[in-house]
Amino acid sequence: MKITLLTPMDWLQKQMLIIETAGRTCYQSYKGDPTQESASKFSAMILKRGHESVVEHSIMTVRFGDVSRGFTHQLVRHRLCAFSQESTRYVDQKGFDIVLPPGKTWDDEIVSEARAYYRRVYETLRKQGWKAEDARQFLPVGMANEIVVSANFRQWRHVFKERTAKVAHWEIREGMTRLLGMVQKSLSPIFDDLVPDGECSKGILAFRKE
Amino acid sequence: MKITLLTPMDWLQKQMLIIETAGRTCYQSYKGDPTQESASKFSAMILKRGHESVVEHSIMTVRFGDVSRGFTHQLVRHRLCAFSQESTRYVDQKGFDIVLPPGKTWDDEIVSEARAYYRRVYETLRKQGWKAEDARQFLPVGMANEIVVSANFRQWRHVFKERTAKVAHWEIREGMTRLLGMVQKSLSPIFDDLVPDGECSKGILAFRKE
Amino acid sequence: MKITLLTPMDWLQKQMLIIETAGRTCYQSYKGDPTQESASKFSAMILKRGHESVVEHSIMTVRFGDVSRGFTHQLVRHRLCAFSQESTRYVDQKGFDIVLPPGKTWDDEIVSEARAYYRRVYETLRKQGWKAEDARQFLPVGMANEIVVSANFRQWRHVFKERTAKVAHWEIREGMTRLLGMVQKSLSPIFDDLVPDGECSKGILAFRKE
Amino acid sequence: MKITLLTPMDWLQKQMLIIETAGRTCYQSYKGDPTQESASKFSAMILKRGHESVVEHSIMTVRFGDVSRGFTHQLVRHRLCAFSQESTRYVDQKGFDIVLPPGKTWDDEIVSEARAYYRRVYETLRKQGWKAEDARQFLPVGMANEIVVSANFRQWRHVFKERTAKVAHWEIREGMTRLLGMVQKSLSPIFDDLVPDGECSKGILAFRKE
Repeated sequence: MKITLLTPMDWLQKQMLIIETAGRTCYQSYKGDPTQESASKFSAMILKRGHESVVEHSIMTVRFGDVSRGFTHQLVRHRLCAFSQESTRYVDQKGFDIVLPPGKTWDDEIVSEARAYYRRVYETLRKQGWKAEDARQFLPVGMANEIVVSANFRQWRHVFKERTAKVAHWEIREGMTRLLGMVQKSLSPIFDDLVPDGECSKGILAFRKE
Repeated sequence: MKITLLTPMDWLQKQMLIIETAGRTCYQSYKGDPTQESASKFSAMILKRGHESVVEHSIMTVRFGDVSRGFTHQLVRHRLCAFSQESTRYVDQKGFDIVLPPGKTWDDEIVSEARAYYRRVYETLRKQGWKAEDARQFLPVGMANEIVVSANFRQWRHVFKERTAKVAHWEIREGMTRLLGMVQKSLSPIFDDLVPDGECSKGILAFRKE
Repeated sequence: MKITLLTPMDWLQKQMLIIETAGRTCYQSYKGDPTQESASKFSAMILKRGHESVVEHSIMTVRFGDVSRGFTHQLVRHRLCAFSQESTRYVDQKGFDIVLPPGKTWDDEIVSEARAYYRRVYETLRKQGWKAEDARQFLPVGMANEIVVSANFRQWRHVFKERTAKVAHWEIREGMTRLLGMVQKSLSPIFDDLVPDGECSKGILAFRKE
Repeated sequence: MKITLLTPMDWLQKQMLIIETAGRTCYQSYKGDPTQESASKFSAMILKRGHESVVEHSIMTVRFGDVSRGFTHQLVRHRLCAFSQESTRYVDQKGFDIVLPPGKTWDDEIVSEARAYYRRVYETLRKQGWKAEDARQFLPVGMANEIVVSANFRQWRHVFKERTAKVAHWEIREGMTRLLGMVQKSLSPIFDDLVPDGECSKGILAFRKE
C-alpha cells in the first residue's frame, strides 16, 4: 500500500489558523491575527470541549495506491468525503496485481496460480472484444487500484476512529493506522487523542461469527 | 437481477399526503386534510416549480439481489441513501454466482470455466483456514450479491436521472430503469418527468475512450 | 410548543420489520418473514452491537409548531434531515407570537409591550408596501413559527443525544425531550438507551462563559 | 455586507493541481507533474464533461460579516458545507445593527426608531438578568452578524447557481453574486460558466404569491 499526502504539509498546518478565525467568530473572541502557536492552542481547547464542527474548516487530500476494491468499497461509504477512483470501466487492467492478506505470500502456489489464471481470463476476454466495463466482472475484489480521498479534519477523525478499531478489516485498518501515524505529530493537536485499537473499543461491528 | 420493493406500495403512495402537509407548512396554505387526490396534485405542482426539497419527506426501500459488487460499489457513492449490503467479511460465499454482461452467456467456455476455477480457488482457501475476509480478495468483482437501499423520493429522482442515462454502466442502468418502471405509474406524479435515456442527455460522464 | 407526529405510529413500528430484513441481508441470516416481535429483538441486538447504519432504513416525520426561529436555525444544521419551514418570504406574519423563555411570562410589562411594538412595526412596514421578505428583518428571532422535519431513526438518535443534553439550548432541549418521551416506549427498543441529561454528559458545547 | 476570503488566493488556485492529480487517477492518464496551466485546462475539460465530483477535492473558506440571521438561516440549509456562526447564546449583542433591504434607509423614521427600541428592549432584559440565550428571542431576524463558511468548489458552484438566481432572496443573492465576482476570474475555469440571473432560470422557487 502506498499512501501519499496530496495536500502540502504546510497548508495542512496553516489551516489551523483558519480554524482559529472561524472558531473565534462563534464567540467573537478575536485576539489579533492568529499564529501557528495560538492556533494550535485554540484547536486543542475546542476539541477538548467537544465543539468539533469548528475543525471542519479544513481539507486533507490523500492518495491510496495498491489498495483492493474491497478497501475502496468500504471507504466510499463515508458520506462527507470526496473520492476519485481508478475506473474499471475506462482503464484497461491488464496485468493487474492483487493485495494479499497479512501473513500470506505469493510463495503459496494456489494464490500465485490463481493470479496468473485470473489475469489470463481478463486478457482473453479483452482480446475477444469485451469492453473493459464488461470484462471487469472477472477482476478479483482484491485487485490493487488507486483512490484519492479528501475530507475535513473532523471527518478524518471519524474515519480514523472507526477504521483503526480492532474490529475493522485489516486492510483499511492498516491504511488508516499508517496515515494517522504520518500526520498525527505534524498536525498536533488535531488527532492527538486518537489511539489506534484503543479509542474505539466499542467499535462499530463488535462481533464476528467466526 | 431481482428487485424487490420493501416499502409497501400503499405507504409509498400515502407519503404524498405527508408531503402535501409539509409543503403547505411553507406557505401556510392549509386546506383541510389532504386526500390522495389533493396530494397528487400538490406534488405535481411543487415538482413543476422545482421546489424539490418538499418531496424529501418520504422513503422508499428497495432490495437488489443478484447484482455485482461493481454495481454496489457505484451505488454506495450516493451520499443521501442508507445501505445494508451482504458482507464478504462475515458471509461465506461458497458457490457464488457471477453477473454476466448483456449478450454474454455461460455457453462461452472461457467464462464458465473461469467461474468454476474462481469458485474452486475461494473454497480451497477457505478450507485451508483463510477467513472469509481474507479469501474475499479472490472473489470476482462480478460476484452476485445483495444490497438494500433506502432513499427519499428526491434522492431517487437524482439516482434515476444519473443512472438511467446512456453513459451509465449497463448493470446499474438496467437496475434503475427497471425500478423506475416498477414505480413510475403507481407513484405518479413523483417520477412522471423522468425518461430513461432522454432526461440526462448531458450525463455525468459524457465520454468514453473506447 | 406543539409537536405532531406526521408518520402514523403503526408505520413507525412496522419499519422495524424492514430494518430486520435489511440487517439480515448483511449476514444472510434470514429466518422466515420478520414479525413485530422478531424485529424488535433484532433492532435491540443490532443497536447493542453498535451497527447503527441498519436502523437508517426508516423515517419519522414530525411537525414542530410555535417554535422560535432560533430553534429552527439550530435544527436545520443537522445535515441528514429533510426540512420544510414556514416561509418569512412568502407568508405574512401579521400578529405573530413570540416564544418566551422558561420562567418568563407576558405579565412582564417590558416583554408584552415589546411584542405589541414589534407587531406594529411589522404591520406598518407591510402597509407602507414593504414585501414580507423585506419586513422580516424586523421580526424577532423568538417569533413562533412552524417546521416539518424528517429523519431516519439513526439520525433521530443523534439529534436526541445532542439536543437533550444539559448544554443544549432550553427550547430545542424541551422539544427533543418531549418528542423522545412521545415515541420512546412505542418504538422500543430504538431509543431505549437514551436518557435526557444523562447520555450526552460530555455534550457538544460543554462550556458557558456566563 | 463584508465578504472576506479566508483561504489565501494562491492556495485556491493551486488546488487545481490536486484536482488534476485526482482526476487523472480515474483514467490513469498521468502526464508528469501538473502545472497551473495544465491543471486549468484539465478542470475546464472535466467540467465540460459534467464530471463535477473531481472538483470536490478543494476548499474555499469565506467570512460573511454584517449579514442578517435570515441570510444565515438560508445558508446553513446547504448540507455539504461547514459553518461557524456568531452565537446569540454566548455573545452579548448589545448595540446590534440591522441589515436594511435594498432601497431602504435609516432616514426612514419608523425603522430608525424601531432599531433604537429593539436595542433598548434587549439591553433592559439583559440588565434584568436575562441570559443572552433568553434575551435573543427579542433580537430581530435582520440583526447583523457573522458567519464563516467552507465548501468545496462543486458545492460552491451549486450554491452560486441557486443563490444568484432571480428568485433568490435579495440578501443571499447579493452575497453570492459579489463572492462569485470576487473569485470567478482568479479561479478560472472553475466558475466560468456561471452567470448570475441567467444560469438558473428555472430556479428553485420559481414562484411568488405577491
